[in-house]
Amino acid sequence: MVRRLLRRGGRGRIARAVANMRPGDVAVMMRAFTPAEQFDVFKLLVTEEIGHAGEILLELDPQSRLGLLTQMKPETIGRLLETLSSDDAVFVLDALPEELQKQVIAIVDLEEEKFSDVQAQLAYADDSAGRIMDTEFLALEESTSIADATEKLRNFARDVDMISYIYVIDDHGRLTGVSPLRTLLLADPDKNLGEVKNPSVIRVHTDTDQEEVAQLAARYDLLAIPVTDDENRLVGIVTIDDILDIFKDEATEDFFKMAGTSDDELVYEDRSLKVAGIRLPWILFNLVGLLLAGLVVNRFESTFHTALLVGFIPVIMGMAGNIGSQTSTIAVRGLATGRLKIVPGQLKRFTWQQMKVGAILGITCSLLVSIFAFFQTMHPAIPVAVGVSLFLTVQLASLNGVLVPVLFQRLGFDPAIASGPLVTTSNDVLGILIYFSMTALFFSLLGVGG
Amino acid sequence: MVRRLLRRGGRGRIARAVANMRPGDVAVMMRAFTPAEQFDVFKLLVTEEIGHAGEILLELDPQSRLGLLTQMKPETIGRLLETLSSDDAVFVLDALPEELQKQVIAIVDLEEEKFSDVQAQLAYADDSAGRIMDTEFLALEESTSIADATEKLRNFARDVDMISYIYVIDDHGRLTGVSPLRTLLLADPDKNLGEVKNPSVIRVHTDTDQEEVAQLAARYDLLAIPVTDDENRLVGIVTIDDILDIFKDEATEDFFKMAGTSDDELVYEDRSLKVAGIRLPWILFNLVGLLLAGLVVNRFESTFHTALLVGFIPVIMGMAGNIGSQTSTIAVRGLATGRLKIVPGQLKRFTWQQMKVGAILGITCSLLVSIFAFFQTMHPAIPVAVGVSLFLTVQLASLNGVLVPVLFQRLGFDPAIASGPLVTTSNDVLGILIYFSMTALFFSLLGVGG
Repeated sequence: MVRRLLRRGGRGRIARAVANMRPGDVAVMMRAFTPAEQFDVFKLLVTEEIGHAGEILLELDPQSRLGLLTQMKPETIGRLLETLSSDDAVFVLDALPEELQKQVIAIVDLEEEKFSDVQAQLAYADDSAGRIMDTEFLALEESTSIADATEKLRNFARDVDMISYIYVIDDHGRLTGVSPLRTLLLADPDKNLGEVKNPSVIRVHTDTDQEEVAQLAARYDLLAIPVTDDENRLVGIVTIDDILDIFKDEATEDFFKMAGTSDDELVYEDRSLKVAGIRLPWILFNLVGLLLAGLVVNRFESTFHTALLVGFIPVIMGMAGNIGSQTSTIAVRGLATGRLKIVPGQLKRFTWQQMKVGAILGITCSLLVSIFAFFQTMHPAIPVAVGVSLFLTVQLASLNGVLVPVLFQRLGFDPAIASGPLVTTSNDVLGILIYFSMTALFFSLLGVGG
Repeated sequence: MVRRLLRRGGRGRIARAVANMRPGDVAVMMRAFTPAEQFDVFKLLVTEEIGHAGEILLELDPQSRLGLLTQMKPETIGRLLETLSSDDAVFVLDALPEELQKQVIAIVDLEEEKFSDVQAQLAYADDSAGRIMDTEFLALEESTSIADATEKLRNFARDVDMISYIYVIDDHGRLTGVSPLRTLLLADPDKNLGEVKNPSVIRVHTDTDQEEVAQLAARYDLLAIPVTDDENRLVGIVTIDDILDIFKDEATEDFFKMAGTSDDELVYEDRSLKVAGIRLPWILFNLVGLLLAGLVVNRFESTFHTALLVGFIPVIMGMAGNIGSQTSTIAVRGLATGRLKIVPGQLKRFTWQQMKVGAILGITCSLLVSIFAFFQTMHPAIPVAVGVSLFLTVQLASLNGVLVPVLFQRLGFDPAIASGPLVTTSNDVLGILIYFSMTALFFSLLGVGG
């Protein structure tokens, strides 16, 4: 419908139609538009000063958002930012190319309190609580009466739509307690906040990683988590809608990393060269590993002269890849959700467990392959060599699948990066080395030539 | 500390220590205990009637939860369930083995309203909104004044800790609007709910899949989503804490499925045979595919007599696996988050895009491998054959990586299932077929023998 209006040029009607839609719905609609159409609609929203143009921007795909922003004047972006909460403004600024970001920051009025907050927030590390927090929250001193607090809450509610807690602070702004709205509803109006507050508050530091923030919120079923600075002063909150986004984004990030790429792909979706560039390093790494595996194959093959050996290379490589990626997936996901902690007892139990499962699968597959190999080759050594190598490869792949992610986590890297291509490549090369060593061993043990 | 107390048998002190801990913290602590220790602590919580024993149960690992429940008497489980909200009670009942579930249901007082709700909820499909919803919510009629609504809210808040909306219903219980707490705070006490309500409510049906419920909540930044039946009557709500769990669980489920296993592994974590059994079907499927690939290798190899050909099998297989899993990961994740919709325009654009990226990567890798092959083999046909096959394999792997998940989604299966082992196995076999066909072609074109 909007597209039809666009063609006919019914600007006023488009603006009215979109003004009545929820930002989330506009974003879904925009996904079906070409970039040029998106820009037409969005320009209209901005020039007609439709209140929620900024919110629509937030809901768009990263790629569409960047596309629109880079076509807009810095002044226009500045005006849009003013309609957003501080965390959302930081989010939009973060998405801008560096040059444009500087221009926008230079233009927006730095005197205004909100934008000095935004500047301070941009100084925190990527993905830290300080970077993603919202600086609009309701914090009242302990001596505030329930009646006063209710009145202040009412004023605050005019501007902010998601309020779940009132935070209690001392006269230095230090966080001393929390009071859910429910407490306010039930408490005697003559009491003061200090009397009804819950003094044990789950809080995070501005430097805390967003993944940990999200895990805490989920573990304690919180609707918002307060963020404090080095002096324990309350400086912001991370609300549940952002926590939901963190869970989605972190999972997406891990999916992409485990496949040997990165979620930056989503931003550059329609630029094939850029996307290929993101994937290329890991692909080349894997390619080198595979060429190496090929050299090993050639080196050994020439010493055996038995063509039948070659037929089992796919089995060894494929199984190593499979079992390795199962184990590493489970390890990476365990580390990401906090289920698997790197403490000696738990790590040992997990590794042992994965090895046992690998052993059961390894024995089953090895037996089947050996029987198959026996009937196919009727050779005295090949079935044994294939069976034993497959078993060893699967065991090593399981161990590799646990240890590589754990090692990466310990070294402070994201374990998801390691999981996909690194585990796969090393398992490919190791599997082929094992296969041909075992073959050499059993051929000589059984006294048969290749 | 609790463990030390356990050894010394300081039961009263343990109970007091645990009573002061948050359920989430108790769950983390329990993870470090042996099953026997877990049972000791939990029995104590139940016999000393520590209020939040039920909530602690909810926060435990699925495996520990099942372990504790199967050791408890049905009567005790029944008493625990009574302390939980309806959605949590359904969740615990769902985790029980069928026999024990029946016993517990037979024992709990069916006259009590809550448990008739629970019974009704168990009748809804797994993972549907009806199954996971909470039947405790505040629904008031349109004619209720703001002052009355505030009073009713106050009463309701005594029992329920997460309230974000008041739902507005007509005299048949049909959902006609919603009013956030904030509206109540700001509205004139003499008005009635019908006047201040927002009549456009995002709602789901009892049959809606939980993944869709979670996507809606995220898209519209909602703290709860109302669930209605066929007559549009409000029967429950899904709250944001559950939505958060859905996101976590669905992502975990997809990670496991894409690795060719299932998140049931988490329930049977310490039972290796059971876990191996979960993984075995896909492993065997893959094994058959790989043996097939091996037969193809043997079949062609004997016609060529050139050992050098074999060295590139790992490259062809490995690259097909890599590119295929990248594409399928992105497709599966796109389908799960709702970014990729199966509508002709979007699907065509996505497929085309992935093919282009595959082509860039394919050309790069093929050139590198051809150059490598030329210097390694000095053969007139092998470098061309390897390069062309690698390019074709990568293109086919990209196409496969998009089409298989999309096809599964269309057929009503979870696309994540298809992605891992199915795409990998078919790419392995296809890659090797292409490689040897191309080799045969170029050998005959260039008039060289194997």
